[in-house]
Amino acid sequence: MKIIEIETRRRVEFIEITASVKKAVKESKIKEGICVIFSPHTTAGLLINENADPSVRKDIISQLEKLVPRDGRYSHLEGNADAHIKSSLLGNSLNLIIHEGELILGTWQGIYFCEFDGPRKRKVYLKLISD
Amino acid sequence: MKIIEIETRRRVEFIEITASVKKAVKESKIKEGICVIFSPHTTAGLLINENADPSVRKDIISQLEKLVPRDGRYSHLEGNADAHIKSSLLGNSLNLIIHEGELILGTWQGIYFCEFDGPRKRKVYLKLISD
Amino acid sequence: MKIIEIETRRRVEFIEITASVKKAVKESKIKEGICVIFSPHTTAGLLINENADPSVRKDIISQLEKLVPRDGRYSHLEGNADAHIKSSLLGNSLNLIIHEGELILGTWQGIYFCEFDGPRKRKVYLKLISD
Repeated sequence: MKIIEIETRRRVEFIEITASVKKAVKESKIKEGICVIFSPHTTAGLLINENADPSVRKDIISQLEKLVPRDGRYSHLEGNADAHIKSSLLGNSLNLIIHEGELILGTWQGIYFCEFDGPRKRKVYLKLISD
Repeated sequence: MKIIEIETRRRVEFIEITASVKKAVKESKIKEGICVIFSPHTTAGLLINENADPSVRKDIISQLEKLVPRDGRYSHLEGNADAHIKSSLLGNSLNLIIHEGELILGTWQGIYFCEFDGPRKRKVYLKLISD
Repeated sequence: MKIIEIETRRRVEFIEITASVKKAVKESKIKEGICVIFSPHTTAGLLINENADPSVRKDIISQLEKLVPRDGRYSHLEGNADAHIKSSLLGNSLNLIIHEGELILGTWQGIYFCEFDGPRKRKVYLKLISD
């Protein structure tokens, strides 16, 4: 198992981890298989989406805020109920394919750690499986 | 393949299955690998989120109800269109990592079967893969 | 790795790929394992849901449109910000279990490629792992 350490600097922030995941795949020397990424946090998520125009991430963040407002009425009294719900909508694990020694991603795809209750020290676990 | 049997008692209910999944991992004797959890139902979902304060689950359920009201106007005439949509938003499979013979979960994470159209008898399938 | 080629004909459309995935599982001759499905696109998603009454798909599409309207106010100026957000909500990978040589699916489950910015030529990658 590999660990990626992440330090977020804002309450809500999408941090790209594509390069770290690609590095772990290279180092594993696995030619064909899969890569599972798992976040052990309940107020953050994982997402694969556009890596080119940063306005896409801005739109995803602001639409999630419209759907699940930070200042909505919630039972959970720690002030981060919205972060738990946003985390539930995006999910906290990803599956990727390793083919010919490379992580398979579309041209416009990047892998993001989605912080919804930062700033915090976070981590993400990777498990690579050879077929 | 292992099967976890679940009996839900309400229309909407999140039932924790963490202990059953951990038991399956222990019994498998796999030291390093992954655990795939799959729900074969179209009106339920699977979720990993907070296992401490139950108000978090209440908030997730009630925000999903705001976003996808049970009594909205839908084409599907069985009265459970909202359950299909909620299931689509959460998803029906999960990936977990097994490391040093243990299922990896964050301190505050529990694994939940999310019933949206109960009460019913349900099941969840597990497949453990060694690396 | 197997590739499924898909040609979408509308802007928004859910195309069933269950038969192609089942074929790939049969051809692999894997008896026990998992099947990872990955979409390399940022304006499409993957979903497992009801394969019987097509009104369920219609309801999922129209509720997603209510939550993330095509003509909302977004920063991304290519006119498809909604498609990126819908893709993020559904996700772009799936996990399935292979047991006794068969892909495990519930009676009412079908596997769908969810186009949100078509018509386009798309593809989906499959990786089958034996346990």
